[in-house]
Amino acid sequence: MHLKWLLLFSLLFAGGLLFKIVRNVKGVQENLPSSDISAPFVLKLFPQKKLRKLFNYDGLWLFPQRQCECEKQPGNYIFQDFYNKSELEAVKERRKAEFKHFQRREGLPQPPPVLAQPNIPFGYPVHGVEVMPLHTIVIPGLQFNGTKVPSYKVTLKALLGTLNTLADTPDYEVMGRGHKKLVILTLSQNRLNFILQHVTYTSTIYHPGVVDIVSIEFGSAVAKFPVNVNQPSIPKLYDPGPEKKLKNLVTIATKTFLRPHKLQILLMSIRQYYPDVTVIVADDSEKPQKINDTYVEHYIMPFGKGWFAGRNLAVSQVTTKYVLWVDDDFLFTKDTKIEELVDVLEKTELDVVGGSVSGNLFQFKLLMEQGEDGDCIHKRSGYFEVLNGFPNCVVTSGIANFFLAHTESLQRVGFDPQLKRVAHTEFFIDGLGNLRVGSCSNVVVNHQSHAKASDPDQASLEKMYSRFRYNSQDQIKFKLTLHYFKNHLQCYTQK
Amino acid sequence: MHLKWLLLFSLLFAGGLLFKIVRNVKGVQENLPSSDISAPFVLKLFPQKKLRKLFNYDGLWLFPQRQCECEKQPGNYIFQDFYNKSELEAVKERRKAEFKHFQRREGLPQPPPVLAQPNIPFGYPVHGVEVMPLHTIVIPGLQFNGTKVPSYKVTLKALLGTLNTLADTPDYEVMGRGHKKLVILTLSQNRLNFILQHVTYTSTIYHPGVVDIVSIEFGSAVAKFPVNVNQPSIPKLYDPGPEKKLKNLVTIATKTFLRPHKLQILLMSIRQYYPDVTVIVADDSEKPQKINDTYVEHYIMPFGKGWFAGRNLAVSQVTTKYVLWVDDDFLFTKDTKIEELVDVLEKTELDVVGGSVSGNLFQFKLLMEQGEDGDCIHKRSGYFEVLNGFPNCVVTSGIANFFLAHTESLQRVGFDPQLKRVAHTEFFIDGLGNLRVGSCSNVVVNHQSHAKASDPDQASLEKMYSRFRYNSQDQIKFKLTLHYFKNHLQCYTQK
Repeated sequence: MHLKWLLLFSLLFAGGLLFKIVRNVKGVQENLPSSDISAPFVLKLFPQKKLRKLFNYDGLWLFPQRQCECEKQPGNYIFQDFYNKSELEAVKERRKAEFKHFQRREGLPQPPPVLAQPNIPFGYPVHGVEVMPLHTIVIPGLQFNGTKVPSYKVTLKALLGTLNTLADTPDYEVMGRGHKKLVILTLSQNRLNFILQHVTYTSTIYHPGVVDIVSIEFGSAVAKFPVNVNQPSIPKLYDPGPEKKLKNLVTIATKTFLRPHKLQILLMSIRQYYPDVTVIVADDSEKPQKINDTYVEHYIMPFGKGWFAGRNLAVSQVTTKYVLWVDDDFLFTKDTKIEELVDVLEKTELDVVGGSVSGNLFQFKLLMEQGEDGDCIHKRSGYFEVLNGFPNCVVTSGIANFFLAHTESLQRVGFDPQLKRVAHTEFFIDGLGNLRVGSCSNVVVNHQSHAKASDPDQASLEKMYSRFRYNSQDQIKFKLTLHYFKNHLQCYTQK
Repeated sequence: MHLKWLLLFSLLFAGGLLFKIVRNVKGVQENLPSSDISAPFVLKLFPQKKLRKLFNYDGLWLFPQRQCECEKQPGNYIFQDFYNKSELEAVKERRKAEFKHFQRREGLPQPPPVLAQPNIPFGYPVHGVEVMPLHTIVIPGLQFNGTKVPSYKVTLKALLGTLNTLADTPDYEVMGRGHKKLVILTLSQNRLNFILQHVTYTSTIYHPGVVDIVSIEFGSAVAKFPVNVNQPSIPKLYDPGPEKKLKNLVTIATKTFLRPHKLQILLMSIRQYYPDVTVIVADDSEKPQKINDTYVEHYIMPFGKGWFAGRNLAVSQVTTKYVLWVDDDFLFTKDTKIEELVDVLEKTELDVVGGSVSGNLFQFKLLMEQGEDGDCIHKRSGYFEVLNGFPNCVVTSGIANFFLAHTESLQRVGFDPQLKRVAHTEFFIDGLGNLRVGSCSNVVVNHQSHAKASDPDQASLEKMYSRFRYNSQDQIKFKLTLHYFKNHLQCYTQK
């Protein structure tokens, strides 16, 4: 009879426990809207249609695709169309070969990402370990936190360097010191961690700019992490001098061709406000005219060598921190305050900041999509965002031909001397990935009048100038095929 | 009585087990030399003396230190010593300010490494995730593998971008789509992993070259990993043309000053072997003489503008993939095979490859140690290693003034126009971290005789030339203080 009561009690107890469990589960479920409880627990992704509504910017879908595309519209270009059909195949072969060489030098394509597995008993550095070629560092963050076992065997391996530890241990406890494989064999987890804390990596190959993948294993648990072998770029600082005078901070640069009278007007307007700032003039006129100005450096080029060649030449001669680019037909006014542009570059991380040319800012964004057959470039007028701390200024990709730049950045990107006549956007495309560009509306330079000169010699030069300046079909074709080959682009759209 | 036998048997069995266990432990210990078993298990590092014997290269201890040092020896320089004592403090202040600006623009100093903790139930990418500014990517490798619980709450956070997932889920299961914080709340580990597999990261700020740190957490377990926001550099490929003619691959560049007769001899020797390769001549002579050669491009500079200014100018005008630098007093011979140097650059990842000038290779290594008050540069003659695949060639840091280079690399590093007279090593120091340099002994150019010219006009020019060429104390002082400020160096040693 006691047994009967015992059985009844057990059943009641078990029933009560079961009830509590079910109620807990239901309770969790009750936090969820009950109407969806019945929704099938099917694993599904968003349909393509819905996906296309996400991840858009300026009407472009900036999500990984194998191939990018450009809408067929007037003003948009598919670059390969501008080659003669007969030469296109050979061009494609050559571009492919040159691209391969480029990729080899840049370490592209990037290897697949290194993935950390869950529940690995190791601590290790995920990001940020860097060593100069042939140097040694202590690898931070290595630790072991696993189950206690009688003995521990932990193996570290490197590919492009050797390993060691600063821990002073008996020979049998750490083997392979100074080699690519280091084996730690110890009885104490404490000692293991002490040894790991002081593991060193020595870079042994003189090949800066590579990433070594170091592995650490214990039994079947393996973790891998990157060590960047990198020689940091040496700084190129400019001494502004004790008084930080503008003439020691800024050089003005320009190119002139068959317009000495306009150049003269520009120079006189500059001297009104900046009497002693150096002006560098690159001149590819047929008969360059002497310039009477103590602070002008005049460079003579072969006749008609070209627009961007002249820009590259002028910039190559600058010895100050900043260079102000102006066209030879600009006109300085009281609103052409170079100091304002200097202030923007001094206080931000921008490389280039443009101003306004007679009220025109010419701001445009360049967005890029990658593709197997070449990338797609999309030019959109406007800007990305307002520049922090400078309400009159914005961040964008391209600007007018009136800008202040870090000399070092301009020299690094360069103006392609293959561009002989009309060109502008090409410089900003070449700068993609290397130039941070801003634009401020409060610094203004004027444009000289476009009216023809009355003096017959000047008028004659101007006539020759406009013949060179005409953006002919041949030139357009040249520039488009240049984008195809040089920049490995597929096509271009603009809005 | 059965009980007695049972007891005896159990004791024997237990004794046998115990013996086996002890023997196993001893067995492990026996693999270790027994003489060290008794060594105290003290955790200690190598003493400084022993450490100094490790991690050496060319007699330099390449291990992290707060400050680096240069031996005081003739030929070695402590750069700040070359400033006037009165100006030194002000110079230090200015250099500190300019260095701060540089660091801000370069994202330095690097933040401390991101460390992975042990036993985190997450899988995630450790290295290699990259996204273009404003673009979206799927984050690879995210997974959860933890203990089964009734419900899972996993939170992801980004700083410089927004998060989402391609998984089509009810609203309550994933919250914060398109924001910096994404919260996943689900009952099924299966569904959790499906959602995680398809998590996307969208870059939202237009600031290329930064690293976002994304975190993923479950309860107290947190993992962090980097996402590189990077706009890849756009390629600058050169079309070698259908026949890969040398004239379409290589431009020869030189600078001349007060030595038109030597330049003429150089040109004639070039034309013997290369009749139509373009030669670019930068000329800052007082009265530049006309050059009669269809394939020479002659650039006139202000008188005495300078050595490196001229080099920078010449290189700025090159439109071919490669540029061959020569001095104006060289002499081409049948061993001056440009094609051999082209072959080296085409097949390796080098940026520059030098040849021999009348048997002299001038190879030297540049090793750098970092330090708070500026870095230390050590110049050592010789090379690092033989160039893979080219037994006549080596990898080094500096070479003679006879070399073939990728035009794009040379333009990127540049020749500092502040260096007006004697300079050589400065270019290779500026190139540290940016130029991979090689040197081959099998391609030779000769040096013209140093004998004075007999023609009186030429002799007069040569006399003026040697006055400019004299490496005066003022010039040496200028170059040393330039290293101090511009390159943020502390000192220099040479062997």
